[in-house]
Amino acid sequence: MTALSNAQAALIAQLRQICGLANVLTHEDTIADLSPWEQDWRKRVHGRALAVVRPGDTAQVAAVVKACAATGTSIVPQGGNTGLVVGGVPDGSGTQIVLSMTRMNAVRAVDPANLTITVEAGCVLQNLQAAAENAGFLFPLSLGAEGSCTIGGNLGTNAGGTQVVRYGNTRELCLGLEVVTAQGEVWHGLSGLRKDNTGYDLRNLMIGSEGTLGIITAATMKLYPQPAAQLTAWAAVPSMESAVQLLGLAHQRLGPGLTGFEVMGQFALSLVDKHYPQLRVPLWKDTPWCVLLENSDSESESHARNQFETLLESAMDSGCVTDAVVAETLTQAKGLWHIRESITLAQATEGLNIKHDISIPVSRIPAFVAETDALLAREVPGVRMVDFGHLGDGNLHYNVQAPEGVDGKAFLRGNEDKVNTLVFDQVKRFGGSISAEHGVGEQKVNKLPLYKDPTALAMMRAVKKALDPQNLLNPGRVLPLP
Amino acid sequence: MTALSNAQAALIAQLRQICGLANVLTHEDTIADLSPWEQDWRKRVHGRALAVVRPGDTAQVAAVVKACAATGTSIVPQGGNTGLVVGGVPDGSGTQIVLSMTRMNAVRAVDPANLTITVEAGCVLQNLQAAAENAGFLFPLSLGAEGSCTIGGNLGTNAGGTQVVRYGNTRELCLGLEVVTAQGEVWHGLSGLRKDNTGYDLRNLMIGSEGTLGIITAATMKLYPQPAAQLTAWAAVPSMESAVQLLGLAHQRLGPGLTGFEVMGQFALSLVDKHYPQLRVPLWKDTPWCVLLENSDSESESHARNQFETLLESAMDSGCVTDAVVAETLTQAKGLWHIRESITLAQATEGLNIKHDISIPVSRIPAFVAETDALLAREVPGVRMVDFGHLGDGNLHYNVQAPEGVDGKAFLRGNEDKVNTLVFDQVKRFGGSISAEHGVGEQKVNKLPLYKDPTALAMMRAVKKALDPQNLLNPGRVLPLP
Repeated sequence: MTALSNAQAALIAQLRQICGLANVLTHEDTIADLSPWEQDWRKRVHGRALAVVRPGDTAQVAAVVKACAATGTSIVPQGGNTGLVVGGVPDGSGTQIVLSMTRMNAVRAVDPANLTITVEAGCVLQNLQAAAENAGFLFPLSLGAEGSCTIGGNLGTNAGGTQVVRYGNTRELCLGLEVVTAQGEVWHGLSGLRKDNTGYDLRNLMIGSEGTLGIITAATMKLYPQPAAQLTAWAAVPSMESAVQLLGLAHQRLGPGLTGFEVMGQFALSLVDKHYPQLRVPLWKDTPWCVLLENSDSESESHARNQFETLLESAMDSGCVTDAVVAETLTQAKGLWHIRESITLAQATEGLNIKHDISIPVSRIPAFVAETDALLAREVPGVRMVDFGHLGDGNLHYNVQAPEGVDGKAFLRGNEDKVNTLVFDQVKRFGGSISAEHGVGEQKVNKLPLYKDPTALAMMRAVKKALDPQNLLNPGRVLPLP
Repeated sequence: MTALSNAQAALIAQLRQICGLANVLTHEDTIADLSPWEQDWRKRVHGRALAVVRPGDTAQVAAVVKACAATGTSIVPQGGNTGLVVGGVPDGSGTQIVLSMTRMNAVRAVDPANLTITVEAGCVLQNLQAAAENAGFLFPLSLGAEGSCTIGGNLGTNAGGTQVVRYGNTRELCLGLEVVTAQGEVWHGLSGLRKDNTGYDLRNLMIGSEGTLGIITAATMKLYPQPAAQLTAWAAVPSMESAVQLLGLAHQRLGPGLTGFEVMGQFALSLVDKHYPQLRVPLWKDTPWCVLLENSDSESESHARNQFETLLESAMDSGCVTDAVVAETLTQAKGLWHIRESITLAQATEGLNIKHDISIPVSRIPAFVAETDALLAREVPGVRMVDFGHLGDGNLHYNVQAPEGVDGKAFLRGNEDKVNTLVFDQVKRFGGSISAEHGVGEQKVNKLPLYKDPTALAMMRAVKKALDPQNLLNPGRVLPLP
């Protein structure tokens, strides 16, 4: 254990004055285990923080940033620490502070007539959903980690989830932000306005910047009327082309009622069936792909059911669906979603695998999958494709499982780089993105120069230098260290 | 007429090499009248250009910018020149070039399965709408100038219009951009992706930057399924509070079917009745406010009508609507919209007036209007309020007409500054924006420091300096000259 320098000790004393003794945790003077803040969700990296600082309000965040800026101490903002790309934990140097936002978790205001809710960054997504529901509204952002992730982290990473096809990503759900800049100034940008053309879009610049341009301390988010009914269907489709055709039909027939459109490959479903037989996966045995559809209706359940049945009949007539079921009860609907959500666990149970979170224009997905499946089969014989994802948004979790009987660890060691390059090169060729919803973090920071437009990268560097000239905020994430 | 310097003459020769002789117009060597490019839409400013340059493709735009950067010549990008805040015409110095994008007007691609269309910046909005319709889709951006304005201008100013309540502003309709930077580099950011978390949101940074951060040369825009039916209703409401209540009810009952919600004050409608009696304004005589509602249905006309009738019945039961009509035919619906759109002309016929394009959180609009009406009546006795706007987005065109019988010109001379300050101070007090949809341009550039958060302004300046260090792109717009 390295002893603190005098400057570091002085900084920690100052941070304790700002946030209170109990809210600055260090390795030196507490018995606390800092692992929860130092280790990423998927336990791939365990850094070492100079201190974990837990501010209680925006003024404290600003004062912490000013103290850090004065001493050249870099800051890693952290929400629920559920990120998947190593963007929210400190490096191993022991010189960075983790700024944990979880104490700032208040719902500041609900404005029903304006359809907005204002919350602090550390508010857990599930609590935000509940606050919306208690006020009689829907906050539509929904994702696996919703019980732990915070809205600040969702904003920082522009999180996606399962209802993007209708409501967009976190970006589209935000109207205003309160942000502490790298200089420790507060931007009071909490706005409930749906129209404001008074200058550059700093809000969207901050959203998705993974804490590298400013620290989001609060946000005003959109609310929606709760749907009168939400129905779920499960359809077998004979090909990915048919899945895309069904999506077009669903857009046409359901309009904005279409709130979910997930695709799942046969092997992915076979893993669920193998490891969770009690879930009773429907229709998967005789079809290469299944689709999960959700229809949210502002009218009534019978209306929604009618619409769904008309859609599925016409899809079967046109041959893009071979068989389908519509959930009869909420329990059945939840069961169908549970199958979809169990794919990740089922493939983990099956063994380690190489994960991708990619997006492709929807129209090109069938060709992408056919070509890339064939390419991988050729280059890495025996691999098994765990393909599933949010087809409505063009977002695939295109995961590569070791060949049957091959040890996952050995497979990853020998093939991960090769498989990543094969897949990402294909993604680029098809006009896609190598990170659809998880972000860049540390994990993909060195991939960006290979796959991102160089002019865009140059602009990103210029913006980062302009807003954070000392490179204090989450350095080495999104953009490589200079 | 001042003679060109040698450097200017050399630049013009170079621009002619790049774009072709016929596509660089100057005062010196053509008999062309450059007024259409030098004078703003509302004819308040007539600048003088060094040259009007009309590039034919993106490579030409990049070469023009490089030539201008090398000589320190500033560039004013221009689309259809229909902007309302003097953002697209040159200053009076005769040293700036106008970069007119209207020759780059191609529809590059339609991708039905991806629900996208890719067009060049100079494509006229109406032509873009038509291209979408021909492919069987809806491009929902719609505004008064759609026959002349270009999508590049719509993006540069983040234009709003009449369907924002459902589809958002131009920003929300865009998925990707091609942009020429201030250094003359091309950012190939035309993306048809709905999810892409690989770095900072440069797309939204460019959108709404009014040509001060880069030159948009092409864009990939979202398409939507065409609604099966679109119905229009007109309702008399007893107060602005009731209008807000009706909006909440409409959101609840129609869900995303609600595509238009316009409010119109009695005096505004009386002007339409006075100057265009043939339009037969309904229901206005006995009510302070009328509301125009539009319901777009993915199912059928009878379904839409049913929904509308249920909504209006329940609104009448609850007292927030006193009387209402639903258009029986498309002609009737168009007639109702025509009345709404005639307010601007009717007030112009009545005389000069002081226009505002403001937004306020919807929940606070009733109090804002009551207080500000009273304030103005006190401070500028006799003024007549022409209030109307997109209540669904919190956007009011809160216009102030001279007292009856008072000459408009004299009224503006004596009162414009005072009225602007009174209104804008109120807007600030109510958490609103002094430019909801028209932008900043030159017209409001000196107001921004008074009404915009100072930290946001500082970040805007830093971003501008980072991306356009020579201040070549539309200098003095959005941000004041340094």
